[in-house]
Amino acid sequence: MRSLFNAILFTLVIIIIVTVIFSFPLRVSGAESAETSPAVSEATEECLGCHEEVTPQIVADWKTSRHSRISFAGALKKDALSRRVSAEKVADNLSGVVVGCAECHTLFPDSHKDTFAHGGYKVHVVVSPADCAICHPVEQRQYSQNKMAHAYGNLVNNSLYRSLMNSINHVHFMEKGKVKQVPAPGNTDEDSCLACHGTKVEVKEFKQVETDIGEMTFPILSGWPNQGVGRINPDGTMGACTTCHPRHGFSIEVARKPYTCSQCHSGPDVPSYKVYGLSKHGNIYSALHHHWNFEAVPWTVGKDFTAPTCAACHISLLTTPSGDVVANRSHRMNDRLPWRLFGLVYSHPEPKSADTSIIKNKAGLPLPTELTGQPASEFLIDKKEEEQRLASLKSVCRACHTTRWVNGHFVRLKNTLKETDKSTLTATQLLLQAWEKGVASGPEQKDGIFNELIERYWVRHWLFYANSIRFASAMMGVDYGVFHNGRWQLTRNIEQMKELLKKHSK
Amino acid sequence: MRSLFNAILFTLVIIIIVTVIFSFPLRVSGAESAETSPAVSEATEECLGCHEEVTPQIVADWKTSRHSRISFAGALKKDALSRRVSAEKVADNLSGVVVGCAECHTLFPDSHKDTFAHGGYKVHVVVSPADCAICHPVEQRQYSQNKMAHAYGNLVNNSLYRSLMNSINHVHFMEKGKVKQVPAPGNTDEDSCLACHGTKVEVKEFKQVETDIGEMTFPILSGWPNQGVGRINPDGTMGACTTCHPRHGFSIEVARKPYTCSQCHSGPDVPSYKVYGLSKHGNIYSALHHHWNFEAVPWTVGKDFTAPTCAACHISLLTTPSGDVVANRSHRMNDRLPWRLFGLVYSHPEPKSADTSIIKNKAGLPLPTELTGQPASEFLIDKKEEEQRLASLKSVCRACHTTRWVNGHFVRLKNTLKETDKSTLTATQLLLQAWEKGVASGPEQKDGIFNELIERYWVRHWLFYANSIRFASAMMGVDYGVFHNGRWQLTRNIEQMKELLKKHSK
Amino acid sequence: MRSLFNAILFTLVIIIIVTVIFSFPLRVSGAESAETSPAVSEATEECLGCHEEVTPQIVADWKTSRHSRISFAGALKKDALSRRVSAEKVADNLSGVVVGCAECHTLFPDSHKDTFAHGGYKVHVVVSPADCAICHPVEQRQYSQNKMAHAYGNLVNNSLYRSLMNSINHVHFMEKGKVKQVPAPGNTDEDSCLACHGTKVEVKEFKQVETDIGEMTFPILSGWPNQGVGRINPDGTMGACTTCHPRHGFSIEVARKPYTCSQCHSGPDVPSYKVYGLSKHGNIYSALHHHWNFEAVPWTVGKDFTAPTCAACHISLLTTPSGDVVANRSHRMNDRLPWRLFGLVYSHPEPKSADTSIIKNKAGLPLPTELTGQPASEFLIDKKEEEQRLASLKSVCRACHTTRWVNGHFVRLKNTLKETDKSTLTATQLLLQAWEKGVASGPEQKDGIFNELIERYWVRHWLFYANSIRFASAMMGVDYGVFHNGRWQLTRNIEQMKELLKKHSK
Repeated sequence: MRSLFNAILFTLVIIIIVTVIFSFPLRVSGAESAETSPAVSEATEECLGCHEEVTPQIVADWKTSRHSRISFAGALKKDALSRRVSAEKVADNLSGVVVGCAECHTLFPDSHKDTFAHGGYKVHVVVSPADCAICHPVEQRQYSQNKMAHAYGNLVNNSLYRSLMNSINHVHFMEKGKVKQVPAPGNTDEDSCLACHGTKVEVKEFKQVETDIGEMTFPILSGWPNQGVGRINPDGTMGACTTCHPRHGFSIEVARKPYTCSQCHSGPDVPSYKVYGLSKHGNIYSALHHHWNFEAVPWTVGKDFTAPTCAACHISLLTTPSGDVVANRSHRMNDRLPWRLFGLVYSHPEPKSADTSIIKNKAGLPLPTELTGQPASEFLIDKKEEEQRLASLKSVCRACHTTRWVNGHFVRLKNTLKETDKSTLTATQLLLQAWEKGVASGPEQKDGIFNELIERYWVRHWLFYANSIRFASAMMGVDYGVFHNGRWQLTRNIEQMKELLKKHSK
Repeated sequence: MRSLFNAILFTLVIIIIVTVIFSFPLRVSGAESAETSPAVSEATEECLGCHEEVTPQIVADWKTSRHSRISFAGALKKDALSRRVSAEKVADNLSGVVVGCAECHTLFPDSHKDTFAHGGYKVHVVVSPADCAICHPVEQRQYSQNKMAHAYGNLVNNSLYRSLMNSINHVHFMEKGKVKQVPAPGNTDEDSCLACHGTKVEVKEFKQVETDIGEMTFPILSGWPNQGVGRINPDGTMGACTTCHPRHGFSIEVARKPYTCSQCHSGPDVPSYKVYGLSKHGNIYSALHHHWNFEAVPWTVGKDFTAPTCAACHISLLTTPSGDVVANRSHRMNDRLPWRLFGLVYSHPEPKSADTSIIKNKAGLPLPTELTGQPASEFLIDKKEEEQRLASLKSVCRACHTTRWVNGHFVRLKNTLKETDKSTLTATQLLLQAWEKGVASGPEQKDGIFNELIERYWVRHWLFYANSIRFASAMMGVDYGVFHNGRWQLTRNIEQMKELLKKHSK
Repeated sequence: MRSLFNAILFTLVIIIIVTVIFSFPLRVSGAESAETSPAVSEATEECLGCHEEVTPQIVADWKTSRHSRISFAGALKKDALSRRVSAEKVADNLSGVVVGCAECHTLFPDSHKDTFAHGGYKVHVVVSPADCAICHPVEQRQYSQNKMAHAYGNLVNNSLYRSLMNSINHVHFMEKGKVKQVPAPGNTDEDSCLACHGTKVEVKEFKQVETDIGEMTFPILSGWPNQGVGRINPDGTMGACTTCHPRHGFSIEVARKPYTCSQCHSGPDVPSYKVYGLSKHGNIYSALHHHWNFEAVPWTVGKDFTAPTCAACHISLLTTPSGDVVANRSHRMNDRLPWRLFGLVYSHPEPKSADTSIIKNKAGLPLPTELTGQPASEFLIDKKEEEQRLASLKSVCRACHTTRWVNGHFVRLKNTLKETDKSTLTATQLLLQAWEKGVASGPEQKDGIFNELIERYWVRHWLFYANSIRFASAMMGVDYGVFHNGRWQLTRNIEQMKELLKKHSK
């Protein structure tokens, strides 16, 4: 009898253990919510009252988020490595409640120009990094020092880049048998380059609108909607945390998976996502990621995942199974990047300042290198910083690879940078010949340098081909850099430039 | 003693609840099968007898299907929103049995020209929409009013489109030092355009064949195999339900996932799938869809999924978590589409009739717009219908986004339509110049308008580039419309057309 | 009382069954490990001692592997169809222990030139097929007869292919206003073609290195890192099993999923992965593979999966649900391939020998066909072998499709081969005209045949376009062969070659 009971109990224990193991991904959240079950603030309750009807999916999505289950006070209880907030303290009224609608959308009402009276509250539409910084100040500060936060200004405040943007977006029309062109309307830029770089979101007016529940006043925004990384928000801050942590689930799983980065990093100008997909890292990710844990903080190499995603190499806090830190979390993503592979024209050391619109080369152009390739060194990190960043990056590689393996890899990458820069110099020299011979109009004729056909061939040489080869080499997705969009196209492009020159020089 | 029992029982109950929750995706089907367990018909039992040996995977696949577990009578028991059949009643012999081999492959033997005597039954190879309509008449009727059902005729019965098809598929050969061309053999069209548009499936002959189990007679079909959306079946019906609901699993999960649509909608001519993949919708889908429920009917926004797939916006019955209908199911997919983004040459309001081969513009060409862009309005939906469809589409957007957000989005899309149409007009005017100047032979020389190099450049202007930009704008996968295949290519293409013109005009 | 016990026991049994069913993917390994729990060898224990600290992810990854849980003796206990090893016997010291670090990295120390003294053992860096063959001799032998094992020599020992490689990788530079070119440095080839084809890995030196645990000596390898399919290893063997079974998880799931193949088979030269993704097979895989079992041996069609991956058609041992063999496992992958779709210039029967560098056509060129398309038959398989291989392939198709369906498919593929070869002949004839007319320098001028612009157009005709059309046809991912990179491009390319010829002939 006794032994039968024991047998039953033993079986039960086994079953419970098995069940708990299999329910792992759900367990974390379930347990936490049971443990803390913090209150929803009165203000957020009011928001939810209407919005569960009006925008049901926003509410449902938020309910899947960690924000809906945990308070700042609860988040603070974790040990330092596991903590997801970087503030030490928040205001008392925020500390004990879950992070709901009101906790973000009513912060700093005076600094947000899109603040409007809504249901008795001062609500703003566009939650900005300044709002997020209440709980995540370190991430906000790091990100503000990241080129991505400056992506709007880095594009539109650089006369050359703006002219490249215009050459892509302008509209052709025919007048008296001649093709002319006008700059695109603002909406076009917003629907093109600024979709990724970020728009300038401004309040055009406050407008009374008839809704199902009566007349209401809303701010009408220009540059909206937008989730660009360098969006200029109505409170003047730069960037959008929701680019990578899309609202209102704010899922770390989303941010850690490569699809998030693909939104802006898969075109021929910056094909990181496509290269990753063809690399051994990407192959293993695709085949096995359903076995991995994308929620754990810190993220343990080998235990939580067995091949890196974009976030693993460039952002996340990584530890070994025995708890040693492999790399610190950084939202200043070039902390682990010594070189810029896809800057204008030539590869070069990373810029010192996240605001790259301040750069001027010796020829007076707003470029990080001369047109012949020499770096504009005073604006770029020095050798020592370069080596330190390379060391940080290599320490991530070495969690899985031997030192010789890693060194061999970087020898090749450096060779690739050198050879693609050499090829780009040749293309540039061909362009100079074209301008000299009058095959195209260049700076001397006060004409743009990105608009005519041979100029376009020159642009794609570095913006698409040299670029893609470098990414393919850097991330070992080598096939991409051969026939997809790489060495084949690079060497062919020289032949096409020669052909155009030859034809017109006859 | 008592309390020990109670403890055990309590633990058991907990375990059972946990187990049931974790087994959710399998539970639905399991429970249903237990609940109804309808019989397999005698005829289907006979089919299975041999085919479990001869085509084991077909049988195994069918066993994974809802068809194998539920009868029409069982399907009727669901409430209206959850019902997956739209017929009110079917013949008695079909009502109480599962939907097996015989239930579909022996329907209407006289109307199917591919009916043949097989194992004592009159069996047909190609199950057609008319067969499916026994249980799903509303879906069949809607689909028949969908342009996709007419995709075969819309291509081959339009002289211009057929000429475009020929210019793509024809075969070049060399004769006396000159390149000539002949139309491709029929097999080539079937292996090219008609793979998606659908072939005409006809019985060539009935042939005696030696098999492992003796001599048997089978119909030999032309145009077979094919799963094109507008396939002409041996019973004269148009379309193939199996294009999106592939046999013999007929899984709603497959139809709702975006891969299904990718089969025909990812090329540069209609890159919806690629654009979706780069959009925030696609990013969230890729990162999180393993948490979602793709089997639920109705499909609840926020509960079953948190970002839309193709089906969510264009086809599925959607409800809010509180049970309100967001959008009705429609297999006439342009019910929620006001404009055609990838019709020939210019964007325009959706055609009134699913049969677009009836359209003639004022110049007498079978096109929905003039060559200068004005819509052939009498064949296209009017402003009122346009607005109604836009409202339907917006109501889907608004399940997750605010009204201002949605409006801002469509302002941009309309700008994009206008600007890309303007650019296409410029390309068209350059082509007219080419014809005038004799750089290429056009309609006046009774030559095709799609075959020569500058004509090809013109075609790709609207068929690839303007097109892709519009999709990128419509689905917020904006990066695709810049460098992948978009604005960069569009403006460059004008330069290339100018270059060709200039060269030959010298 | 009795009945209460019975009820409890019954419930327990149900729960256990349910739990076991839901835990299926993990069950196999769990059960096996419990069943056998073989020892870890003393030598491997020593390796792990340090490497759990030094390369934690390598150890963690290995722990996920079957190698870490099972011994050769345990693997032998399976019945013939389920067995994953093909040796009958291994040395006594290997038989009873798990396959750990030392079991592979210390085998045959004398034949591995990269063997070095390390922690009291003779360790080599690069585990080669000869090492794997201890347990998997049949797979190693088959693979050595696979063209992939010879991929290094097949490229660099063929003067024509090497010249194509040079034309892609060489570096342009400007000298006295003229564009010149030099061959790329060796690192470039390794970072380009040889990344897939395999490098020649050689020991450059043994070097003393300062490490965290004192001074150590390591071999410094050239051509490293590399996972190319035809890598020449320091022991002289060809190939790398880890290309498809990446270390140190050696997961059959990874090898069976299509991402593995994508690493080298997705560019325009061999777009199998992209075509697969757009095919119905690929669509179903993408939508449903989370329901499938990628670990089972043998792999049962319909039970373990319902649509094939690359491995299913080309490599894996497949059975029907009733246990009949559909296809035998073969690592000589062309056992099921009658024709080569992407050989140089024209399609043709598979070569007899895996070493294709021995092939010479009648014109003396190292090509499997004449430049006019006739096969170099003495080096290619004969009609009988062709038909036998086609029959093997068709038997895989027929596990899911009827004979008429399969036949119809192959009629189309044969048509496609014929028509694309015809188009390629036309392109070749245009190239011959270009050489005759002096538009480009060819063999008569002792110039390369792959470097000038019109030659590049000729190369892309067969290497990208004809090629892609054939793959699209072969794998029913037809859309890829129309607008992505197919018939549209093929016919346009003839127009572009004509244009170049016309311009220079004026």
